[in-house]
Amino acid sequence: MPFAYARTIHFSDTDAAGIVFFARYLAICHEAYEEALAAAGLPLATFFSDHGVIVPIAKSEAAYLRPLACGDKIRVEVAPRRLSENSFVLEFAIWKLPAPGSASGEKRAAAARTEHVCIASATRERQALPPALAAWVDGG
Amino acid sequence: MPFAYARTIHFSDTDAAGIVFFARYLAICHEAYEEALAAAGLPLATFFSDHGVIVPIAKSEAAYLRPLACGDKIRVEVAPRRLSENSFVLEFAIWKLPAPGSASGEKRAAAARTEHVCIASATRERQALPPALAAWVDGG
Amino acid sequence: MPFAYARTIHFSDTDAAGIVFFARYLAICHEAYEEALAAAGLPLATFFSDHGVIVPIAKSEAAYLRPLACGDKIRVEVAPRRLSENSFVLEFAIWKLPAPGSASGEKRAAAARTEHVCIASATRERQALPPALAAWVDGG
Amino acid sequence: MPFAYARTIHFSDTDAAGIVFFARYLAICHEAYEEALAAAGLPLATFFSDHGVIVPIAKSEAAYLRPLACGDKIRVEVAPRRLSENSFVLEFAIWKLPAPGSASGEKRAAAARTEHVCIASATRERQALPPALAAWVDGG
Repeated sequence: MPFAYARTIHFSDTDAAGIVFFARYLAICHEAYEEALAAAGLPLATFFSDHGVIVPIAKSEAAYLRPLACGDKIRVEVAPRRLSENSFVLEFAIWKLPAPGSASGEKRAAAARTEHVCIASATRERQALPPALAAWVDGG
Repeated sequence: MPFAYARTIHFSDTDAAGIVFFARYLAICHEAYEEALAAAGLPLATFFSDHGVIVPIAKSEAAYLRPLACGDKIRVEVAPRRLSENSFVLEFAIWKLPAPGSASGEKRAAAARTEHVCIASATRERQALPPALAAWVDGG
Repeated sequence: MPFAYARTIHFSDTDAAGIVFFARYLAICHEAYEEALAAAGLPLATFFSDHGVIVPIAKSEAAYLRPLACGDKIRVEVAPRRLSENSFVLEFAIWKLPAPGSASGEKRAAAARTEHVCIASATRERQALPPALAAWVDGG
Repeated sequence: MPFAYARTIHFSDTDAAGIVFFARYLAICHEAYEEALAAAGLPLATFFSDHGVIVPIAKSEAAYLRPLACGDKIRVEVAPRRLSENSFVLEFAIWKLPAPGSASGEKRAAAARTEHVCIASATRERQALPPALAAWVDGG
């Protein structure tokens, strides 16, 4: 079961087209990643610096399948997958929940993917994932 | 009792100083306003357009009392207050929750205030608040 | 020659890692798209609504090659390419300019790609690009 | 003569009301502050850390006078004013430029004010402004 993050679309997520600006989908996915890490006991704010590493995003991809508007309720699924000793991928699915009282089901609003590489802060060279992070990725 | 909105600080709320960018505090306050309206049955996305009005923010003020970092848990209180037949004020208090296991209490991280004016979409002239909105403001 | 957009990295583009947040690269690319359209006499704010179409982004991809910090000067190249009668791709390259007095040259900070589909506002069905937009895409 | 910063409103500055989100006006003012500092030879990214100080914003105020839409050209004036040995105020005026060919003049779109306090990074106590910053503030 992937980790799921519940979120409401805010006014500041939207643009003049009346819907969520495309780059905001990725920011929302990153929120889900932060929540998934925190739920696993790996807080983004301190875990990486405590381990002397940074884990920047090297690549992102997204498919925007359905517009989202202010007030929409979404669920963001996050599933990590190992790429190598020092890198991993996160697969995201953003689901739009049905309006209250609606007979329709959840609809997929977006799919996204980010690729993360672990780098030693001191040397700027690739480094194996810290064990606790590796455990989260491999257990995902 | 003012309405309270719970929120975690996200990485995208922060800036290179490592803490929440000052303008983001106001965006977070607006989220609390949206949640307070929704809880009162007045969804921002449709209520105003259904009533043929816009309710833009004419003024804002904020005092930044304490930095907030990624992962911090906050509670945002929203209290509306009537200014005139066609305008109202929202008073916000952002409280930083203590870290789990900490003996200290909540600390106020910011105070903010926004002033809202109701305008008829068609004529662009000031108009009395729609009754349901007035009821929310007066009951606040 | 692709269109080029010059930009300075602002404090609000950065996150607590001290560098531009990954999703902001895509927002910056969209600024370059807006400027390229405006330079071609096709202002985003009015062109699409005047033609009864919307042109949402269906997909995005980005490779983050080099961090960008507050104050960095960048140049964003935009090159459109036709996909079909009703869709096109934008290829972006973000170049980091050398610091004043530096002997080194420009370095590529990111590559990105967005895919755009033209849809009739009234019917929500795919529609051929308006001629002026098609001319810009094909001349790119 | 106050420093002036020229800017075009981007799509990502707007919200579902079709105009610039109120908190973005403050982010845009901060861009003007960064540009004014850079023009005075005081780059935000390095000047403060080089001097062992942080200069956080303690208060902000804004009056939103006129909506701004995607593509609008603005000019942001920044005028610093000394408050005390360790603090200063920035006064901002955002002017909306007339559309090309329009006979009307610039119109004030917003007025804003931020209050900045200089704090020693090491001790977290108030400290006198570094001389170069004081010179910029006093010469403003």
